Amino acid sequence: MANGPRIAIDAMGGDIGPAVMIAGMARARRRDKSLRFELFGDESKIAPELEKHRPLVEAVTIHHTTDAIESSEKPSQAIRRAKTTSMGLAINAVKTGAADAALSGGNTGALMAMSKLALRTMPGIDRPALAALLPTLGNTDCVMLDLGANTECDAQNLVQFAVMGSAYARTVLSLSKPRVKLLNIGTEELKGTGELKKAAALLREADYLPFRFEGFTEGDRLSRGDVDVVVTDGFSGNIALKTAEGTARFVTDLLRRAFTSSLRSKAGFALSKPALNLLKVHLDPNNHNGAVFLGLNGLVVKSHGGANYKGVANAINVASSMVRNDITRKIGEDLDNFRAHTFSDEAAE
Amino acid sequence: MANGPRIAIDAMGGDIGPAVMIAGMARARRRDKSLRFELFGDESKIAPELEKHRPLVEAVTIHHTTDAIESSEKPSQAIRRAKTTSMGLAINAVKTGAADAALSGGNTGALMAMSKLALRTMPGIDRPALAALLPTLGNTDCVMLDLGANTECDAQNLVQFAVMGSAYARTVLSLSKPRVKLLNIGTEELKGTGELKKAAALLREADYLPFRFEGFTEGDRLSRGDVDVVVTDGFSGNIALKTAEGTARFVTDLLRRAFTSSLRSKAGFALSKPALNLLKVHLDPNNHNGAVFLGLNGLVVKSHGGANYKGVANAINVASSMVRNDITRKIGEDLDNFRAHTFSDEAAE
Repeated sequence: MANGPRIAIDAMGGDIGPAVMIAGMARARRRDKSLRFELFGDESKIAPELEKHRPLVEAVTIHHTTDAIESSEKPSQAIRRAKTTSMGLAINAVKTGAADAALSGGNTGALMAMSKLALRTMPGIDRPALAALLPTLGNTDCVMLDLGANTECDAQNLVQFAVMGSAYARTVLSLSKPRVKLLNIGTEELKGTGELKKAAALLREADYLPFRFEGFTEGDRLSRGDVDVVVTDGFSGNIALKTAEGTARFVTDLLRRAFTSSLRSKAGFALSKPALNLLKVHLDPNNHNGAVFLGLNGLVVKSHGGANYKGVANAINVASSMVRNDITRKIGEDLDNFRAHTFSDEAAE
Repeated sequence: MANGPRIAIDAMGGDIGPAVMIAGMARARRRDKSLRFELFGDESKIAPELEKHRPLVEAVTIHHTTDAIESSEKPSQAIRRAKTTSMGLAINAVKTGAADAALSGGNTGALMAMSKLALRTMPGIDRPALAALLPTLGNTDCVMLDLGANTECDAQNLVQFAVMGSAYARTVLSLSKPRVKLLNIGTEELKGTGELKKAAALLREADYLPFRFEGFTEGDRLSRGDVDVVVTDGFSGNIALKTAEGTARFVTDLLRRAFTSSLRSKAGFALSKPALNLLKVHLDPNNHNGAVFLGLNGLVVKSHGGANYKGVANAINVASSMVRNDITRKIGEDLDNFRAHTFSDEAAE
């Protein structure tokens, strides 16, 4: 089998560490034999876990380090240990070309800060953004960004997020012309902040780009399946994503209470179980694991700290799909296109 | 029976208009015979609906007007018709003292603009806020504000929202010392915008006020029942509220699909139905209807435009409970208290 994407893995990140990361790697490789891994972390903890997944061994190169970023560490402290920690070294492997993408389940702020410092933002991107897939009632998931990398964003940032998010949707969701909307508190043109209105005006004019801008959407429409890319600042995006997660758990908790409230409903639950398992699969965050830092000169994927091995495998699939589709190049082309039009407009005035 | 709260009702607001407003009034009055209503709207449409609820007639005074605010009207246009529209006249009844509170299911922006202009903000309040109750897994609902009245807020606004929201929780949820948190994208002190951090610092010092400030909370904790008052700017609050509504509907839609996917699951559904109905009641937005404009010299309640008669009755209960508990006076006392401490601190420095 030809050599496929090489993924640098931070073995020490996440709530559980090497056991779940390595089990996830094994699962991902069972599906895709061409994957190879550069694995960074404490060899004494890695080796016994690798023993449990013998077929994986031939695809893994171990890079030993005992230094690791703690989940509570400040990004400003973490970046000082870029050269010694498993997270920093995994990112550096992307910088040097030893790997095509890096993946970590560790401290998000530290991962973002280290990635920015090592990989730098792409030409035309002021700030990278964190993007992820949300389940919907439609045929495909939708992409949402930014999910917390930037607490405050101006119109230019939002336009750049739209360009990056639509490149991501074209790649990972195989859509030729994704529908893009800005998250707002109403769909009328006069709603929202000044920056949102400015971003909408810019996007309305950018009809030469490979997406359709369809105006504003609201929080209650996110899972309806009528939008492919939801663009927002990192503060609102993080609030929306976490509120959606919390509400889904809230409803399923109420459902569990309802089903255990009487013998009769317990019997109903037993009968409905196969159907309800489909619901569980659809809502399981592990099936949507793998948030992506877009806008850097290199690919970095964030796995949820609490993801299980299926979630880690899913995040690895996200990373390898982006490598295969050369998403960084696609984003670059769209940005060049956008800037060429903007500058020629200005010159014509 | 002694005379209870007098509620001014905008009969023409909401998606359905007089039929649902009057049926809601009838339901509210069946539970509380002391309620009285000042009803504003088109008498030719009101009279036939009142005919259907004979016992209500003795409690209602009709004020005829054919002018009404449309749902799509801009607030800046709406305020010019404060003296002629059913919405404007209902608010004016609070201003003149003819009613103790006003209720409308119409255009939120117009209701807010007209209420501010007619009633003015309380001394010490820069901007009023829209507050509502959210269902939780705990024993009581939680209060969230602002839900969309102010797209951008500074630290002082957020502190004022905390004071108003806790007065509301003390009144409507009967809590003596509500737990107050600021909505943020992390719980660590260094997370979020500068204004959020400033607001947190101010609230941490305000320990003489009748609430406990417990720092930051995140979107996924809103329905956990570990906070009584969630304070946020109107943009994030609106996004969070609508995302929660949308996600709850998303999960119940998936559930419906699961239950109808096979004969076996249909049988399971039939058995579980009584238990699932409890879930339905818990999640029904009508049972949480009635958002309140806090911080004005007079009470105004917004009923959801799509609320049914039970939802309208619920919003009327919210209004009458605020009147009975004299919430405007309570907010005023807390604000005086806050300012007295703040000014004496400044004088001491």
